Amino acid sequence: MPEQGYAGKAVAVIDVLRASTSIVAALEAGAKEIIPLASIEEATRLAETMGRETVVLCGERDGNKINGFDLGNSPLEFTPENVRGKSLLMATTNGTVAVARARGAALIAVGCLINAKALVPVLTEAQADIVLLCSGKQGRASLEDLLCAGYLTKLIKDQFPEAEINDGARVARDMYEKHKSHLTKAVKESDHGSYLAGLGYLTDIEYATQSDASSTVPVMKDGRIVAS
Amino acid sequence: MPEQGYAGKAVAVIDVLRASTSIVAALEAGAKEIIPLASIEEATRLAETMGRETVVLCGERDGNKINGFDLGNSPLEFTPENVRGKSLLMATTNGTVAVARARGAALIAVGCLINAKALVPVLTEAQADIVLLCSGKQGRASLEDLLCAGYLTKLIKDQFPEAEINDGARVARDMYEKHKSHLTKAVKESDHGSYLAGLGYLTDIEYATQSDASSTVPVMKDGRIVAS
Repeated sequence: MPEQGYAGKAVAVIDVLRASTSIVAALEAGAKEIIPLASIEEATRLAETMGRETVVLCGERDGNKINGFDLGNSPLEFTPENVRGKSLLMATTNGTVAVARARGAALIAVGCLINAKALVPVLTEAQADIVLLCSGKQGRASLEDLLCAGYLTKLIKDQFPEAEINDGARVARDMYEKHKSHLTKAVKESDHGSYLAGLGYLTDIEYATQSDASSTVPVMKDGRIVAS
Repeated sequence: MPEQGYAGKAVAVIDVLRASTSIVAALEAGAKEIIPLASIEEATRLAETMGRETVVLCGERDGNKINGFDLGNSPLEFTPENVRGKSLLMATTNGTVAVARARGAALIAVGCLINAKALVPVLTEAQADIVLLCSGKQGRASLEDLLCAGYLTKLIKDQFPEAEINDGARVARDMYEKHKSHLTKAVKESDHGSYLAGLGYLTDIEYATQSDASSTVPVMKDGRIVAS
């Protein structure tokens, strides 16, 4: 990926299916923090250093739980019983890559459909240019992330009509307007949505497309993700 | 950019404003070939090797002609008087980067709005997965390239209704359907379109949005771009 210049920007990292949604669910369920890690090895090593009983190892590869880990990447697994008070060490395919790319930003928040409305004031109060960073897959944008970015764009423009937006935000907003009345259906039919549905994660898609179901806004602080 | 796996694919490199459009214009005007080069230095060096009188140095930086070059990146400059029988050494910001990324493909063609309809049989006859590679800018998709990819997607699906398309192609097609009745206006208002209009290149935008005005399909052969 070419340098995108995130220094000084307010960045929302969007990975609707499923890292962003799971991070919101985990903090809402009382997790102490989430530490995103780029590899299984890094996560396992840190678990030993921190003490296995204080952490929850979670993450997915190709949609499924990593062997030997406690949890996968399904938001429904992040229950109070599983995560309250714990440090979550999370190795995910896309989410952690996106967080790594956003280093140097003024603010890094985690965005998804379930926390979109709560996220907007956190982004706008930073008084910086806002970047809606769609995680996607292998450099390609995913429809579900684009729909979330479009919803955020609409919410921001409703509040700040004079805000300038670029081609990507305009495309995202147009796609959101086209699909807003049937978000769950649109995401089920998307590339990654249909892949996850095939693996049996249909309820994750239903959960992830409940717009504004949560008021939790995860933000990055010193390499950890905590509730803002 | 992560590995996108172009090996064995039929790739259309799309840079509507303006490399792809200019390449089509140049071949239509009788240029012998276009050799894409990543840097000004490479282009200048090759011009000396090949003999300054047999080549035309062309390319832009930030929208304008490179100092000491013969032509910029405006399709209107590529007239028979300027290019007939010549080898064009082209250093462009995005186009050449995209061509470089598409190395290893089964077919690399150059696509834009003005040659979309002529391009489709060249892509489909390759009997391979088709990749519509939007050049964009700094890793971000540009609206004008998305509109072109959307038009190509529509043309391909009209002919092959059973063809499977991904999220990106669906988004592109939706955007094309939304803007097809006013393509020139939409591109004028896009990020790069409004930038170029500000530099005085409004006629380039009008030229570049004349869908199917040309039947020339540039393809890559041995590092050179020639008419198919």
